[in-house]
Amino acid sequence: MQRCTFYHYWRSSASWRVRWALAIKGVEHDVVGVDLVAGEQSTPEHQARNPLGRVPALVLADGRSLAESVAILEWLEETVPAPALYPEDPWQRARTRQLVEIVNASVQPMQNISMLRRLSPEVPVQRAWAAHYNELGLGAYEALLGQIAAEGGGNGPFSIGDRLTAADLFLVPQVYGARRFQVDVSRFPRVLAAEAAARATPHAEAARPENQPGGSLG
Amino acid sequence: MQRCTFYHYWRSSASWRVRWALAIKGVEHDVVGVDLVAGEQSTPEHQARNPLGRVPALVLADGRSLAESVAILEWLEETVPAPALYPEDPWQRARTRQLVEIVNASVQPMQNISMLRRLSPEVPVQRAWAAHYNELGLGAYEALLGQIAAEGGGNGPFSIGDRLTAADLFLVPQVYGARRFQVDVSRFPRVLAAEAAARATPHAEAARPENQPGGSLG
Repeated sequence: MQRCTFYHYWRSSASWRVRWALAIKGVEHDVVGVDLVAGEQSTPEHQARNPLGRVPALVLADGRSLAESVAILEWLEETVPAPALYPEDPWQRARTRQLVEIVNASVQPMQNISMLRRLSPEVPVQRAWAAHYNELGLGAYEALLGQIAAEGGGNGPFSIGDRLTAADLFLVPQVYGARRFQVDVSRFPRVLAAEAAARATPHAEAARPENQPGGSLG
Repeated sequence: MQRCTFYHYWRSSASWRVRWALAIKGVEHDVVGVDLVAGEQSTPEHQARNPLGRVPALVLADGRSLAESVAILEWLEETVPAPALYPEDPWQRARTRQLVEIVNASVQPMQNISMLRRLSPEVPVQRAWAAHYNELGLGAYEALLGQIAAEGGGNGPFSIGDRLTAADLFLVPQVYGARRFQVDVSRFPRVLAAEAAARATPHAEAARPENQPGGSLG
C-alpha cells in the first residue's frame, strides 16, 4: 500500500482502534491531528474526509478517504492480510464481529462527547449516562466471552482464543473509556484478562492516547 | 446450511435487515417473534441468544446463537456466498461497510426505543432527538453516495452502483424509521433513489415490517 494519511484525535477511541491496526500491519502513514475541542472536525475539509464530521479518516495516496473504523479495519485486512486481525474460521470471524459491534454500535455511540453534550449540560448526568452504557456493553461482552469459551472457541486470554483480533482493538479503548466514567470494571474478569493480554502485544502501548502528540493523562 | 431459527420483532430495523438477507440467500429457517413491548427480550432465555437482550438473533441447528446484524450478514456472506451482498472489489466492499456503519452505529442506536425511553418520558423530546440523528446520518449517507459516484463507483441506482448490497439492506429500514420520525427525506435524493431501487428487488416487500405476523401500519 502506498503511504497514506491518518486523521485522528488523540483521545478518540475510534481513532485508537485504527492507529493500532495501522501499526500492527506496518502501513506507512503520516499522522494529522484533528482537534475536536477546537471544532476542526466540522470544517468542510474534514467533512469531505468523513461526511459524519468525525474521526478517524484514512486518506489514500490518490486522495480517496475512508471513514468508519469497522470499514477501515476490514479494508486493511483485505488489502494487507498479514498479520491477520480476523480469525480464519468463519464462525470465529462471526464471533469477532459480534464483539466488535457490541462496542462499536452499542457502547461508543452512546458516550461520545457530542452526544453527551446534546443530552445534558450537566456533567454528572453525562457521566451517569455514559457509565450505564459502558456497564451494559461490557457486561454483554463478558457474557459472550463466556459463551465463546463454552462452545470451544478458546478460553482466552484474548477475546478470541490465543491470538489478538480486531475485537481486542475495540475492547481496549472501551475499557479505558469505562474507567474514565468510573465503571467498576472488576466485575468483568474475562474482559480484563483480554485487555491485559492485548496490552502486552507489540504496538499496543505506542497506540495508547497518552502516547500521542498532544495527549496527556488529564 | 442446516435449517436455523430466526428471532425477531416485526418492527425492529435490525431484524428487518437480517430477515431480508435470509430471504435473498434462501436460508431455510423458522421464525420466532420476540415481543419487545412485552419485554420478552429481557428473559434469561433470550439473553442467552443475545447477551445485549435485543433482536435479532440467529440460532443454528446445533444451538449456537449469533447476534448483531452486521456480524450475521457478514457470516451469511461467507457461508452462503450467492447471491452476493458485498461487492467483489475491496474498495467497493469498504464503501459498502462505511455506508452500513453510518446506519448501524450512528443512527439506529440513537433512536431505538429503550434509549429513547431512558432519554425522556416525553414523546416530543424523543421524536426530536430521533429525528436529529436520522437527519444527520441520512445526510452523511447522501454525501457519501455523491462521493462514491464522483470516484467512479457507480452512479446508482443502488447505494453501490447497479447491484443490491448490504448497504441497501441497512438503508431501507432506516428511511422507514426516518419517515416515522417525520424527517423530510426529500432532502436526500440519492438515498431515495437507492431505496426505490432496493424496494423493487425480489424479497424486498416480503421482508417489510407490515408484512410480518403481528405487524401493522399503526
